[in-house]
This record gives sequence, structure tokens and C-alpha cells, in this order.
Amino acid sequence: TITREIVSLLAPNRDLKGLTVMVTAGPTAEPIDPVRYLTNRSSGKMGFAVAEAAVRRGAKVILISGPTALKPPAGVEFTGVETAAEMCEAVLERFPAVDVVIKSAAVADYRPARAAAQKIKKNTDSMSIELVKNPDILAELGRRKEGQVLVGFAAETSNLEKNALQKVAGKNLDLLVANDVTQPGAGFGTDTNIAKLVYPDGSIVPLPLMDKLALAHRILDEALALREGKK
Amino acid sequence: TITREIVSLLAPNRDLKGLTVMVTAGPTAEPIDPVRYLTNRSSGKMGFAVAEAAVRRGAKVILISGPTALKPPAGVEFTGVETAAEMCEAVLERFPAVDVVIKSAAVADYRPARAAAQKIKKNTDSMSIELVKNPDILAELGRRKEGQVLVGFAAETSNLEKNALQKVAGKNLDLLVANDVTQPGAGFGTDTNIAKLVYPDGSIVPLPLMDKLALAHRILDEALALREGKK
Repeated sequence: TITREIVSLLAPNRDLKGLTVMVTAGPTAEPIDPVRYLTNRSSGKMGFAVAEAAVRRGAKVILISGPTALKPPAGVEFTGVETAAEMCEAVLERFPAVDVVIKSAAVADYRPARAAAQKIKKNTDSMSIELVKNPDILAELGRRKEGQVLVGFAAETSNLEKNALQKVAGKNLDLLVANDVTQPGAGFGTDTNIAKLVYPDGSIVPLPLMDKLALAHRILDEALALREGKK
Repeated sequence: TITREIVSLLAPNRDLKGLTVMVTAGPTAEPIDPVRYLTNRSSGKMGFAVAEAAVRRGAKVILISGPTALKPPAGVEFTGVETAAEMCEAVLERFPAVDVVIKSAAVADYRPARAAAQKIKKNTDSMSIELVKNPDILAELGRRKEGQVLVGFAAETSNLEKNALQKVAGKNLDLLVANDVTQPGAGFGTDTNIAKLVYPDGSIVPLPLMDKLALAHRILDEALALREGKK
């Protein structure tokens, strides 16, 4: 990784020049009322690393992110969103004009059926929140895909390979980066990941513990190879 | 504010020397499963500003915070927590030995009745989450209070004064800092607040738009006056 970093700083590899890469990152926040919301554990680090790596390699980069504590890398076109619905709208709008999509955002699967306009006062010992399903952005991209390379992410806590194989096929992805978030070094908010690359033909490539920027470069290598295979 | 900053840097006012100030900050995160959680809009900035102001004025400062993107100020004793239950335990443990409590954390009122050990798979179009009430830490401190000065915060979106007066009396507080989070400049994540100081005798002092560090000093001025009044 250090070698790669030095090499890339001294002699930047511009192999993504001419390509537009859309990256999604972070969690989404689904409001219950103006104060409370439902969200996911995602620091945004993985997606921001992919955006940074892609921009260094010469791509035009569109980064669409939910709320994080991170600063967008220099040179990316950044759109901040809150909810899954907002992310869906931003992603679908840009999709026809991009070459590669790296969808690392942890989009909330469900949102509260109703978001209260005023803060809910707590008068009862228990309450229940009705949730409805959010649009499945990745599946929708899979349906609409023409020439784009579509890379998804999966954070799993059990049955990783089975769930990943279902997802890569069911959503018409070109590659799924599956991450067992229960492993040390692979969890949310860490600077490292332990991922498996899962392909639609059923092949699975386990990767070692890598820092997120190195993994970002590896994912972009794969995306570029997939893109060239499609030409 | 700039004047105050310069004065405080040149000739630090050590008027809190000898006092132990416990500050709570940030939101709490209430897990639904290992990936999803319920939380509140709180950046932690207000509480971290109070901790910083108090340590500069010579206090021993205990800062107990939920997850934020902030770095604890130098010189404070920091405890990071996730859930309301963890915050409650940490706060109650330290309470007997402190002189002033500034409770600016946005503690979740409710938590999921059950937190799933594995990530819940999304198979249904809708679902419902059963919530149960979290311990009311501020009310518990009000019940246990002996000589401590107890300062609470309220983020309101409607009926601010009515709700604040109920809270200051109902929870046995010495001071409530009430904040209409719908006002521009007073919302979550901003560097400023527009607060009202609400006292148990029913008096209300509206403050102008202030940056959070200036408001922190003002709150500490009030807490010190209340403390001296009690001696």
C-alpha cells in the first residue's frame, strides 16, 4: 500500500481518464420527526476512498453521499443527501451519463411511514413505528443498466456468501464487494476492510485485510477490467 | 465574543477552580440490529463547547458523550458511550462526586424493545418496530440531587416556553436552556444557538443569537451563580 501510494503520487496512473464514475457513500437518515431518525452504521470512509482513488486516476467523479463527518476529496463533484428517496433521485438522474457506478452507500431499507412535522412528545411507556420499504436503488440501476458497470456492496453479519450470490444475480450487478462486518478490521468506521469480490458467474475472490484506499484501487481495477471486457 | 476569547486567552479566568463539572453531549444510538439504529440530530457541539469553556476556567471536567465527529477538548476526562442505558450508567456513577451537571446530550427517549443479534433481512414491504421508553436520566438526577447544580437542555419545535417550564419544574432542575431548533441559527449542527434561560421560579431570559462557545460561558456563569447561591 505504501509503495502504491508513493508510485501513484510520483507517476499518477491516469487509466480512468475519459470515464465518469459515480460513487455513493455514507448512510441515509430517515426522519421520524424533526429530531429523531433511523439510520445505519456507515462512516462513508469506503465510498470517499473510492471517489478519491478514482479522481487521482483521472476519472470524472460524481460523489453522492448521505450525512458523514468527512470532507469530499478535492476534484469530485459532490452532492449531499439525507434520505434514501433523495439519494435515489440524485442517482437515477445521473445514471444515464455515467460509465461506472460504485454503490457503497448504506441506504436504509425502510423509512418511517409517516414523518411527524413536530417533535413527538413522549407520553407513553411504549410506542411503535410503522416502517415502509424504501426504493431499492441498486436493483433499479440493475434494471435500467445499459453499458454501465455496476458495483454493489453488501455488509453482512451471517451467511455472507449465500446472501452475496443472491444479491449479485438478483440485482443484475457486475460485481459485489461483500464485507463481513463482524470480523475485526472489517467493521463500520474502521480504516480497513476484509472483503470478498463476488461475481455473477458465482466466483468469489477473498481479499486480505486491506486499508480502504487500497481496496478502493482494487475495486477500480476490477471495474475497469469489466468495462473493457464490455467494449 | 472575539474580545472575550482574547481576554480569556491572555488572562484566563479560573473562577471554576475547585469545582467538578460533568457535561453530557451528543446523541445516543439505539440499535435495531448490528447495522441499523435509531438516533437524534445532535452534533455534540454545544456540550463539547461547555466542556472546553469549563476546563479553560479551571474546572475538573468530566465529558460523557454519545457518538460524534468531534475530538474531546484537551484536559477533559472523556467517556464515550453509545446507548441511553450506557449514558445513564456512566452519569449516575459520577453524579455523587460532581458539583455541576450540564446535560446537553440529546438522549433518545425510546429504544427498540429488542435489538436483533443479526442483520434483519428485508423480506416484507412494511414492518413495525416496537419501542420502549429509555430511563429519563435528567429526571433521575433531579430526584437524587443533593448540592449539585443541575442544568438541562430542551430542543423544541413548538410550544417552547410551556414545555420548558414543565420540564424545569417536573425534573427538579436549577436551569433549563431551551432552544427552538426550527429557528435559523439555532438548529442542530450549527455553530450558533438562540436559547432561552428558563428558571424554576418561572422566569425566562431570552438570549440573542450566540456562538456555542459564548453560550457555554454564559451557562457556566449562571451555574456558578446558582452554585454560590446554594452555599
